[in-house]
Amino acid sequence: MTQKAPDCIYCQRNQQQKDIMIEICDLNVSTLFLFKEQSYEGRCVVAYKDHVKELFELSVEERNAFMDDVCHVAETLSRVFHPAKINMGMYSDKLAHLHVHIAPKYEGGLDFGGTFQMNPNKTFLSDEQYNALIEKIKQAL
Amino acid sequence: MTQKAPDCIYCQRNQQQKDIMIEICDLNVSTLFLFKEQSYEGRCVVAYKDHVKELFELSVEERNAFMDDVCHVAETLSRVFHPAKINMGMYSDKLAHLHVHIAPKYEGGLDFGGTFQMNPNKTFLSDEQYNALIEKIKQAL
Repeated sequence: MTQKAPDCIYCQRNQQQKDIMIEICDLNVSTLFLFKEQSYEGRCVVAYKDHVKELFELSVEERNAFMDDVCHVAETLSRVFHPAKINMGMYSDKLAHLHVHIAPKYEGGLDFGGTFQMNPNKTFLSDEQYNALIEKIKQAL
Repeated sequence: MTQKAPDCIYCQRNQQQKDIMIEICDLNVSTLFLFKEQSYEGRCVVAYKDHVKELFELSVEERNAFMDDVCHVAETLSRVFHPAKINMGMYSDKLAHLHVHIAPKYEGGLDFGGTFQMNPNKTFLSDEQYNALIEKIKQAL
């Protein structure tokens, strides 16, 4: 179950991945990343530790542990950023490594009332701003 | 925990809800609906039994039971329709009743490789076709 796929950005943690997200920390059975595009303030990705395609392929114990990590992050982001609602999405049609996009949504903010976009390509921050967000999240986890 | 919200389509199962989805059956702690817009063949909604806003607000036991229902549906849709990938989304910024959109995605099909749209407004079926899909899903559950 811990096989690493050679062409998977989550297994390899390569530059292609670093261009779109910043590693925050390991959780129980996953790793937490800050999504660089921050139109939805606080947006993160939680990626499962192993190269598994579908959530339903995990054992019940593995799935419960993963969803516990996901909900721990969602609850933390809600507490830190006070969004109106936390959105979650699992898509990954072409990248068979289980991960959840967690996008806080704000009243009057981008796409409030609808789905969130994979990459609005609008809001990028300075390294200092990314570090400040990451520190806020880490301290609240 | 079983309070029904007066203005919630999932609590009231009103005409507004019937216009966009068809009830298939109750699951352990949720109800399964077929989404009428079928651009992503087999698309369903799994709605939690109670009017709860966020997944992380459930107890661990409730959450695990809900995700068990969700994964049971996802695995069933995968078996029945053979999509390349199952997508899942929880949005619901303005409707505080926990539900998951389950959208099978197909190579060469709409939005393959990206997120799925809330409502592409393209593919609606006849009652006979809806019933045939529902029967297929019910028998496979």
